[in-house]
Formats: sequence, C-alpha cells, structure tokens
Amino acid sequence: MEPYLISTKEIQVSYADTDMMGVIYHANYLKWFELGRCQLVEDAGYHYLDMEEAGYYAPVYQVEVTYKKAVHYGDRVFVKTWVEENQGLWTVYGYKVVNDSGEVCAEGHTKHILVRKDNFKPVQFKKAFPEWFRRYEEIKKNRHKTYCLFFVWYYQFCSNAS
Amino acid sequence: MEPYLISTKEIQVSYADTDMMGVIYHANYLKWFELGRCQLVEDAGYHYLDMEEAGYYAPVYQVEVTYKKAVHYGDRVFVKTWVEENQGLWTVYGYKVVNDSGEVCAEGHTKHILVRKDNFKPVQFKKAFPEWFRRYEEIKKNRHKTYCLFFVWYYQFCSNAS
Amino acid sequence: MEPYLISTKEIQVSYADTDMMGVIYHANYLKWFELGRCQLVEDAGYHYLDMEEAGYYAPVYQVEVTYKKAVHYGDRVFVKTWVEENQGLWTVYGYKVVNDSGEVCAEGHTKHILVRKDNFKPVQFKKAFPEWFRRYEEIKKNRHKTYCLFFVWYYQFCSNAS
Amino acid sequence: MEPYLISTKEIQVSYADTDMMGVIYHANYLKWFELGRCQLVEDAGYHYLDMEEAGYYAPVYQVEVTYKKAVHYGDRVFVKTWVEENQGLWTVYGYKVVNDSGEVCAEGHTKHILVRKDNFKPVQFKKAFPEWFRRYEEIKKNRHKTYCLFFVWYYQFCSNAS
Repeated sequence: MEPYLISTKEIQVSYADTDMMGVIYHANYLKWFELGRCQLVEDAGYHYLDMEEAGYYAPVYQVEVTYKKAVHYGDRVFVKTWVEENQGLWTVYGYKVVNDSGEVCAEGHTKHILVRKDNFKPVQFKKAFPEWFRRYEEIKKNRHKTYCLFFVWYYQFCSNAS
Repeated sequence: MEPYLISTKEIQVSYADTDMMGVIYHANYLKWFELGRCQLVEDAGYHYLDMEEAGYYAPVYQVEVTYKKAVHYGDRVFVKTWVEENQGLWTVYGYKVVNDSGEVCAEGHTKHILVRKDNFKPVQFKKAFPEWFRRYEEIKKNRHKTYCLFFVWYYQFCSNAS
Repeated sequence: MEPYLISTKEIQVSYADTDMMGVIYHANYLKWFELGRCQLVEDAGYHYLDMEEAGYYAPVYQVEVTYKKAVHYGDRVFVKTWVEENQGLWTVYGYKVVNDSGEVCAEGHTKHILVRKDNFKPVQFKKAFPEWFRRYEEIKKNRHKTYCLFFVWYYQFCSNAS
Repeated sequence: MEPYLISTKEIQVSYADTDMMGVIYHANYLKWFELGRCQLVEDAGYHYLDMEEAGYYAPVYQVEVTYKKAVHYGDRVFVKTWVEENQGLWTVYGYKVVNDSGEVCAEGHTKHILVRKDNFKPVQFKKAFPEWFRRYEEIKKNRHKTYCLFFVWYYQFCSNAS
C-alpha cells in the first residue's frame, strides 16, 4: 500500500519541447509538473477549474527543479506527483519525472498560494476550500510520518508508563 | 520612399525556441509574427491592449507560413510586418522573417477577426475602431495599387475623352 | 470502412498553452499537429526517429491553419491526421482538431520535405524510404479518389467500346 | 560603482507567454533567465555558442525561482543577471526580473554543469575554458565578499601581530 497518494501521469513528449542540445529544454519540465499536478487534483476528486469557477487562482509562488538525467524525444516519461505540504497559506506539491526504466530524470516541487481572481490578494486555502483542504490532509506525504512519530512516541510513552 | 508602412522588429532568438534539428522549431515563428504585428500596431499609433481595454479581442482566424531558410540560434533575425488587407470583418497582416544578410527565412500571413470579450461574437473592426480602421486604410499594402489602378483608369478615361 | 487511414490522438491540453484571451494560443495548435502526425506515422508502422537515425530530417516547409472554434482549458480535444499528398519531394499531412462533441475546432495541413542531416539538402522521400513511401500510397487520402476516377473512366471506356 | 558585473537585458514580453490567469505563465521566466544569462556571457566577452563549437554543452542542473509580483502583457521587464558562484564543476547564475518601476517581479538562480557533447560526461569548466573561468572569477558576486573577508582577516592578523 502506498503510504500517501502519488499520482502518475504519462507525458506526451513532443519534438517542440526539445532543444538543439538534443534533449528536452529545462523549462518544459515545469509544464510537465503542471500536468502531473492536475492529475493529482483529479485523483483527489477535484479539478483545478473548480477553483477558478469559485473565483480563485492558485498561482505558483516558488519552483525548484533538479535535473538528473536528460530526457530525449522518443523516451516514455511519467510525472509522479504528491502533496508535500498542506499549510493554511500554501500548498507544496512534490514531483519526480521518471522514465520507463524507472530512472529518476528530474525531481522538484512547486509552492502555490491561493488568490482572489479580482485582486490577486492571498486567501487561506483551508477557508476557501475546507473540504479540499481536508482531503489534502488525508493524502499528503507527511501525514503518515506524523502518524509514525505519534506511534513511536505513544509506544515509548506506554513503555515508560509500564 | 516605402509605398506602404512596413514595420521592422528585431527578434530575441532564444535557445528555448530551437529543437533537436538544431534550428528554430516552426511553431515559434508564429510568436515572432505576433511580435512583428504588435510593432506594426505601435508604429501605426495604437497598442493591442487598447482593443482589449475597449472590450474586444482580435483572435487569429487563419495562419499560413512558408519556411524558406532555417534560422539557427545565434542568427540575428527581423520580422517585417505590414497590413495586407483591411476589410470590414477581418484584417490580414503580411510578414517576412529576414536575417541580417537580408535573406528571407520565412514569409506568411495571419488573418484576424474582432470579437467581443464577453461572448466571442464577431464585430466589424471598422465600426468598433473607425479611426484605427482609417489608419490601416492609409498604411495598407494595396492602397497604392488601388491608386495606380485609378490613375491608369483616369488616364485612359481622359485619353478617350479627348 | 474508413476510405483512407485517419489517426486519432487525444491531446493533453495544458494551462501553459492558454493565453490571456482565456483560450489556447494559436501557435500551440502546430504542436498538436506534430503529435497527431507522429501518431499517424506510428499507426502506419514507423517512427519519426527512424528518419533521423537513417540520417535525415523532415522539416516543415509550409503550414496553414484555420481556427473555427476556440479551445478552452478543460476541453477534451483530439487531432485527426491523414496523408493528404505523397509526392516524390514532399508529403502533405492534413489535420482536424475536434472536441468531444465532435465539433471541428481547427483544421489545416503541413507540407514536409526530406533533407540530409549533414547539409539540409532535399532528397526524395520515395528514394530514401521506398517502403515507407509505398505505405503512404496505400493510406493516403487521394488513393481512393484516384481509383474511383479510374473506375469511372474504365466504365465509360468499356461502355464506349461495346 | 557596481561591486560585481550585473547584466541587464530587456525582455520582449509576448502574448504567447501569458496564460488564462492574465499573467505570464511561470515556466516562461526560465526562458527570460536564459536571455539574461546570454547577455551576461556576452557582456563578459564570450558567447554561449563558443562552448558548443568547442565540443561542450552547459546544461542546467538545477533551477529555483520565487515569484513576487505577476508580470502582465504590456509591462516592460528586464532581467538582471550575475555570476553567483563559479566552482570547478558548476556555475551558478543569479537573476532578478524587474519592471520599469524597479519592482522585483521574480528572482532565482540556475546551476549549470559543463558536459562533452558526445557523451554528456561532466568536465571542469576551469579546465575546459581557463580564461573564461578566470573572467568569471573577476566578475562574480562573491569576489568582493572574499576580498572583504581577507581584509578583515589581514587587519586582525596585523593587529594581533603588532
């Protein structure tokens, strides 16, 4: 059993995304992250457009990518995406780009805030979408870590108590 | 003297726009056409955003590009743009991509309609922006051809009359 | 029965490909055509990289697109691709972008030549890839039209003869 | 006096680079960083193609971007670029995207390695391009910090000595 929800999205690798180095141009991985993120949102039971229809945008506040292995045109690649952090004011998604031999080609994360469409003022994801926020609490990466830490502590507590 | 207004815009050729063939990927020329078109609009005394602020979009209805000579990263390229046709319901812009040896690397045109932002329904450019439309009449390619035809006809008319 | 081979490729519509008009930016349809074309090549039993590995590129010489209906983020779209013309010196692919209601959002074609990788000099597709060329003869759009014309002529010829 | 070389490159902001949020799509800032970096390389007296012609590529190993203020179509923006780190095995470039009011819209860095074109094996920038490496030593951000630390140490050393 997966300890937290990891979505998998196969990417359509396009010639347009290569550069004269013969590999995928680095900026295009961010588009792949976007596709992975949308898949995760769908797997969690939502759609990004739900946010926009409710009057919000979820712009990217920060990105970080480390490139491990160049992707070539003709390779089959998949983006694996999960919720890394789910705070009141931001959500951090984690990503791995893997090829069909299971090699990690890139990994990274994007941090998103939630803003009102009309004025781009930040709002709390937790308040704007409480159910969606709770869903992320269930599927996020650190939930189980928290549980584990709790169990370790509880075990020690009980051990000490006896 | 230029017989009609031709704008010139130098393009920032980017590595991102190359592909593994070692040349600029063909779709990116349409972005260059966009930059050329905006330069022409500015040279004519307007800005594309004037349209959007007035409640309209000018989407592309048709494009056609012929690629004559591959552009490489490191080349200096310029887009030359003019108004090819200026009809009530559409505007056709003509383009040439030239390098710094004056060679034509690509040429093409884009046909634009004008629509309302709220419902994407077409409206007449002539009615929505009468002054801008008249400006295009002045600078368009076929104006002088029309004049020439008129003079030919007038000369013949006068000759016949005498 | 399909009178000629038409490939269907579902496209991953990405937020990255939208513009501030709220629709897919027109240049991105050319990337979709590329994905459709590669699907057709695969359906015909080949892969574009076979060309490159054999020492050739198949650059785009001409494109033409007509935009009929804007595509929005969240729409499901498919590119339908076929071989429109299969000449000694060029291949023309035809395309239709359709949504899941079957509406045609765009249509167009791209004309490709075949060049040597080392010097970009054109070569005959028919000579470089005779088997692939013959495969295109089988699947191309006008084959059946040619057959029909032949049968019409043959029928008339026989009728006259008798 | 600038304590280290900072290049400034005005960016051609294109409609193609906007998204349906009405702002520049986040991945496109990486293309702007590329333009800024090339300007810095030129200002330092070189050209990226010098590397490729000598048989090397300088792929991106890591990127990090923080988005502070959305850029809109019609804004004038500039990328300021400098050498942040110049190590034997990698070069880190720092970037700021500023608008014409001097506001910082984004900042980030990219870490590059140097690899052989034929096998993508990393090589030392210092060994492959010793002169270029020394030039980066002169213009990099931390040079003066190093000098300052040296002077502080030297001052203390002398003070202690006396």
